[in-house]
Amino acid sequence: MEKEISQAVIRRMPRYYRYLGELLDEGVERISSNDLSSRMLVTASQIRQDLNNFGGFGQQGYGYNVKFLYDEIGKILGLDQKHKIIVIGAGNLGQAITNYATFEKWGFIITALFDINPALQNTSVRGIPVYMMEELEAYCSRQPVDIAALTLPKEQAPKTARRLVDLGIHAFWNFAHVDLDVDDRDVIVENVHLSDSLMQLSYNIVKNRR
Amino acid sequence: MEKEISQAVIRRMPRYYRYLGELLDEGVERISSNDLSSRMLVTASQIRQDLNNFGGFGQQGYGYNVKFLYDEIGKILGLDQKHKIIVIGAGNLGQAITNYATFEKWGFIITALFDINPALQNTSVRGIPVYMMEELEAYCSRQPVDIAALTLPKEQAPKTARRLVDLGIHAFWNFAHVDLDVDDRDVIVENVHLSDSLMQLSYNIVKNRR
Repeated sequence: MEKEISQAVIRRMPRYYRYLGELLDEGVERISSNDLSSRMLVTASQIRQDLNNFGGFGQQGYGYNVKFLYDEIGKILGLDQKHKIIVIGAGNLGQAITNYATFEKWGFIITALFDINPALQNTSVRGIPVYMMEELEAYCSRQPVDIAALTLPKEQAPKTARRLVDLGIHAFWNFAHVDLDVDDRDVIVENVHLSDSLMQLSYNIVKNRR
Repeated sequence: MEKEISQAVIRRMPRYYRYLGELLDEGVERISSNDLSSRMLVTASQIRQDLNNFGGFGQQGYGYNVKFLYDEIGKILGLDQKHKIIVIGAGNLGQAITNYATFEKWGFIITALFDINPALQNTSVRGIPVYMMEELEAYCSRQPVDIAALTLPKEQAPKTARRLVDLGIHAFWNFAHVDLDVDDRDVIVENVHLSDSLMQLSYNIVKNRR
């Protein structure tokens, strides 16, 4: 990957991956950018442009080979590799994420949850153990961790993120309602701000009423 | 609101709202766009431009009145109104959302959950009742519903969305891993595709390794 692909293009890739997966399930072997376009409700030219960022994949007049394209986009998205995830915060949201076994088929493996609530000691979620926060350092010295999912209150999130960075974790899937202020350019943060999305929805509801 | 504000600007509004709320909590009464800029890590000119979309709010040289700006953005986002939400799917994710009592302070009130699992009949989450899906029509005829949160498997999501549109619900907070194909221009969908965001994170992890 020589040139930098814009995050806007990358944001669209999982959706391509999802549609191509559905086509595969339906037994479709080839698809033209026009057919993919009418299915995905984006223009065929947008599709060609997006995929050209990664070298094209299409043959003029022959359309795309669905399986090949699916696999290639999977590789671009890093889904051909395993990503080990620990979940910080074993409350409802942490448990919900852990119960989404679906993530596993794309290589995202949740290996442990951590919490400060002593009532959760020695419990597990879908067979995945819940540890106490004071066991974090010991765990991370024994086990490789690629991603920390943060589902803890916003007051604790920045401090905990710094603690995790010190333990060598450089990727965060952040559900806490706060921007992580991690002073490290190698750290990657992907935010899921649920209330922001609810406010966006509310704006559009109210706008329609005006 | 005469002119159409771009969704990109709207997407940034909840973040302004969050930072202004924190300033209020800290007792800050006025803030310059420069100070807000260094706090939010966006340029002061971006801030001025964004807020000018809604008529400015600032006085040259005096900065912004934090409380006024907070309230105004709240109104823009429709947070001065109540939004009644039903959650379709009372599994882990549906329960996690319902337990996020935080949403209530912005006017998002979850009034009921619905599921097909008979084991959940007559149960409740944080005092909010879980009903069976066959009770949906009766419930919606008695109670106003502004938003349906969809936390059900993707196979059932599009059909259920159409059923809800027929019941007069026009706003969806969609967690199902599928695009809702609702043929109605008045319907608003806000997607939270958790796996898409995980794939985006994975892309950035793998890119850094390359």
